[in-house]
Amino acid sequence: MKLVVIGGDAAGMSAASQARKRRGDDLDVVVFERGHFTSYSACGIPYWIGGLVEDHEALVARTPEAHRQAGIDVRMRHEVVGIDLDRRRVVAHDLAAGGEVREDFDHLVYAAGAVPVAPPWARVQGGGVFGVQTLDDGKAIHRWLDADPVPRRAVVIGGGYIGVEMAEAMVNRGLDVTLLDKAPQPMSTVDPDMGARVRDAIAALDIDVRVGAHVEGLEMAGGRVRGVVTPDGTVPADIVVLGLGVRPNTALAVDSGIPVGATGGLRTDLRMRVVGADGPIDGLWAAGDCVQTTHLVSGQPVHVPLGTHANKQGRVAGINIGGGYATFPGVIGTAVTKVCRLEVARTGLTELEAAAAGYAFVTATVESTSRAGYYPGAASMVVKLIAEKRTGLLLGGQIVGREEAAKRIDVLAIALWNRMTVEEMTALDLSYAPPFSPVWDPVLIAARKATDAVHAEG
Amino acid sequence: MKLVVIGGDAAGMSAASQARKRRGDDLDVVVFERGHFTSYSACGIPYWIGGLVEDHEALVARTPEAHRQAGIDVRMRHEVVGIDLDRRRVVAHDLAAGGEVREDFDHLVYAAGAVPVAPPWARVQGGGVFGVQTLDDGKAIHRWLDADPVPRRAVVIGGGYIGVEMAEAMVNRGLDVTLLDKAPQPMSTVDPDMGARVRDAIAALDIDVRVGAHVEGLEMAGGRVRGVVTPDGTVPADIVVLGLGVRPNTALAVDSGIPVGATGGLRTDLRMRVVGADGPIDGLWAAGDCVQTTHLVSGQPVHVPLGTHANKQGRVAGINIGGGYATFPGVIGTAVTKVCRLEVARTGLTELEAAAAGYAFVTATVESTSRAGYYPGAASMVVKLIAEKRTGLLLGGQIVGREEAAKRIDVLAIALWNRMTVEEMTALDLSYAPPFSPVWDPVLIAARKATDAVHAEG
Repeated sequence: MKLVVIGGDAAGMSAASQARKRRGDDLDVVVFERGHFTSYSACGIPYWIGGLVEDHEALVARTPEAHRQAGIDVRMRHEVVGIDLDRRRVVAHDLAAGGEVREDFDHLVYAAGAVPVAPPWARVQGGGVFGVQTLDDGKAIHRWLDADPVPRRAVVIGGGYIGVEMAEAMVNRGLDVTLLDKAPQPMSTVDPDMGARVRDAIAALDIDVRVGAHVEGLEMAGGRVRGVVTPDGTVPADIVVLGLGVRPNTALAVDSGIPVGATGGLRTDLRMRVVGADGPIDGLWAAGDCVQTTHLVSGQPVHVPLGTHANKQGRVAGINIGGGYATFPGVIGTAVTKVCRLEVARTGLTELEAAAAGYAFVTATVESTSRAGYYPGAASMVVKLIAEKRTGLLLGGQIVGREEAAKRIDVLAIALWNRMTVEEMTALDLSYAPPFSPVWDPVLIAARKATDAVHAEG
Repeated sequence: MKLVVIGGDAAGMSAASQARKRRGDDLDVVVFERGHFTSYSACGIPYWIGGLVEDHEALVARTPEAHRQAGIDVRMRHEVVGIDLDRRRVVAHDLAAGGEVREDFDHLVYAAGAVPVAPPWARVQGGGVFGVQTLDDGKAIHRWLDADPVPRRAVVIGGGYIGVEMAEAMVNRGLDVTLLDKAPQPMSTVDPDMGARVRDAIAALDIDVRVGAHVEGLEMAGGRVRGVVTPDGTVPADIVVLGLGVRPNTALAVDSGIPVGATGGLRTDLRMRVVGADGPIDGLWAAGDCVQTTHLVSGQPVHVPLGTHANKQGRVAGINIGGGYATFPGVIGTAVTKVCRLEVARTGLTELEAAAAGYAFVTATVESTSRAGYYPGAASMVVKLIAEKRTGLLLGGQIVGREEAAKRIDVLAIALWNRMTVEEMTALDLSYAPPFSPVWDPVLIAARKATDAVHAEG
């Protein structure tokens, strides 16, 4: 029996490894990967660019050679260009040596990842304009930063996670950085009241933050970028980083007659089998940034390209292909990042998302400390909860603070996962000792205040 | 209407404050407190002794004056010596001025806390032998450490949280410290395999840890302690700290005809009303270290004297007295501490406790890192899970690690609270970014391994 995998990063290689581990030599596994790397942490690229991580090899969890030793036939620099579902065959281009390869399959895992959202003006090749999706992208940025003439001015377009992380990385490299965001403020993944704190932290890094910025184009000269054109003038740039988000890389699947869902991602069942027009397609699996999943709080389909989901989904697909049983029920929108020393985390729905989902809700925001107030290193942290009106069901939470603040979002994530009300949460037996928390954990204080708000609203 | 509260620390003052806040001038509130302080953090005493916290006033969340300004009649240095439930009256001694006070009540909150477990040999008054229950204890220790002759050698008896924390505090003060524990190793609140790491951390502080130690008595001379007598000889000591645990301080309640539960603590209903032989006693409430509660995983009554429970229980009592509605469902045994830089946390049941409760179980222990392995500051952390055989229901968890490890116990605490299985936990949407976690959070890795163990056991 043969498994073919399209894409050799987190989702694809997790699926390949799990399936192979369970079936052993009974299962031939062939993986086609377009780039130069397998199983790497794209999330780590900003830290490598910024100098916190010395070598890109540290970001590679498992090399092609290591996978091969585990019995997986990894074909690097191979791009799959056609899927024939009836004949159960894929066609791939060998990007290095040239030529075409055909491979039959019994099972196919589609793990082609995501592609950057790129307006027409952003579709330049090289010249100092970069996305940050792959380790190959990271290498290209590194080379550009080290090349002569050494870039002095960076413009980052997009104020989401990757944009903010890259802006900080550029500051750490000693560049003058401008962050352009079309939204009213960066980090719109949290509510404006919480985002304002993030904006302050970004500005404190001496990043020139320009919000409501509309990018009209790039100014190029001699094959190099010179600036970013906006209605307010051109922002000079020796390097431009695109952080405009990504969309599922499903072109190949669509060409093969597989329909995509409302978000543009492939639809799957709980076991990560691809769902076509007539239901699940036998032997066809998908995982990672190319799929859509269900938001368990809103009930809506969402596209959440995160390495943690890719790993889980790939593992689930691999277990099922290997004859086991595992499911991926969906996500609740947990995310976290760090801007200098400020930690920012969210889970569930923001106010905007809760309203869009149809919820009526109350909110409660409290400011407390990460440790007992008298304990050295106690730092301010802000917790915001969103709870359904009347029922008090937790709908979402956001945390902004310093060291040891953001990872507490997991407490809210599990409360959400289990459909707890904020009133139930007030009784939670959370850990307490002065080095770790005030005697009332900030999460409990927020739950108390949210409970009061639910009662007050009636 | 009048509320009388016995005990002015966390539980008593929380009850008093909540009730007064809700009823305002309709409710007279009188609090009798034996000592010199209200609403203080006893958990903070070791950090004050060790010099991490400069002033004991930092440990006081609210002074008697502040409570008085909120309309609460706080009577300091008053010890209640009798409760007449039929006449609804208490009698108190004024320890400062002498004399007796009588006070009628409509509601009575019994929040007398706990008293140290003290074998006959430990019942000395002064001379360098101290418990660590109250801020007055802390002041006495401080005075002794600063007095002439300056103590050089400390012996801490008992290797639980307070014993270990006090041992470290004494090291920080520059004393030679011996820790005597009758158990096979200190910190027996975690399983031996996890506890071994704690023991190493304690020993690394140059604390002389002697386990299996049986204390026979104290050697006193000239009114000062000189040593601790064991079968293996006398351990020289200029100061002895007792960390032998506490038991509920219920003598007064028992004298008034109120029966105690299996643990020696007062029994209460969900609203913190005291339960007598014939059911809940109208108008009589209890909270804090003097009550027993239900362990929600074992279903057994337990006595867990922790400030966080005291605060919650007091608040619940106060809300109900004030005409509101709130409940305290029980605990799941969450606790955390720090030994130098080593963080130690637990929740639910240990192996020993799970077996005692009648569970058959499997365990899984994994070693991972607090951050992505390549991110600066990534530190080793060990997560152990205990899951019920066949059902895979999470029964308990323990974490030992460095910075940012222990507070993750809350994730396990909420999973336990919601009766999750380890298999369900593998899908949890926990936060991920390289500064906060490997792409597979250590908790998820442990859940995966525990799931495998459950399946393997069949």
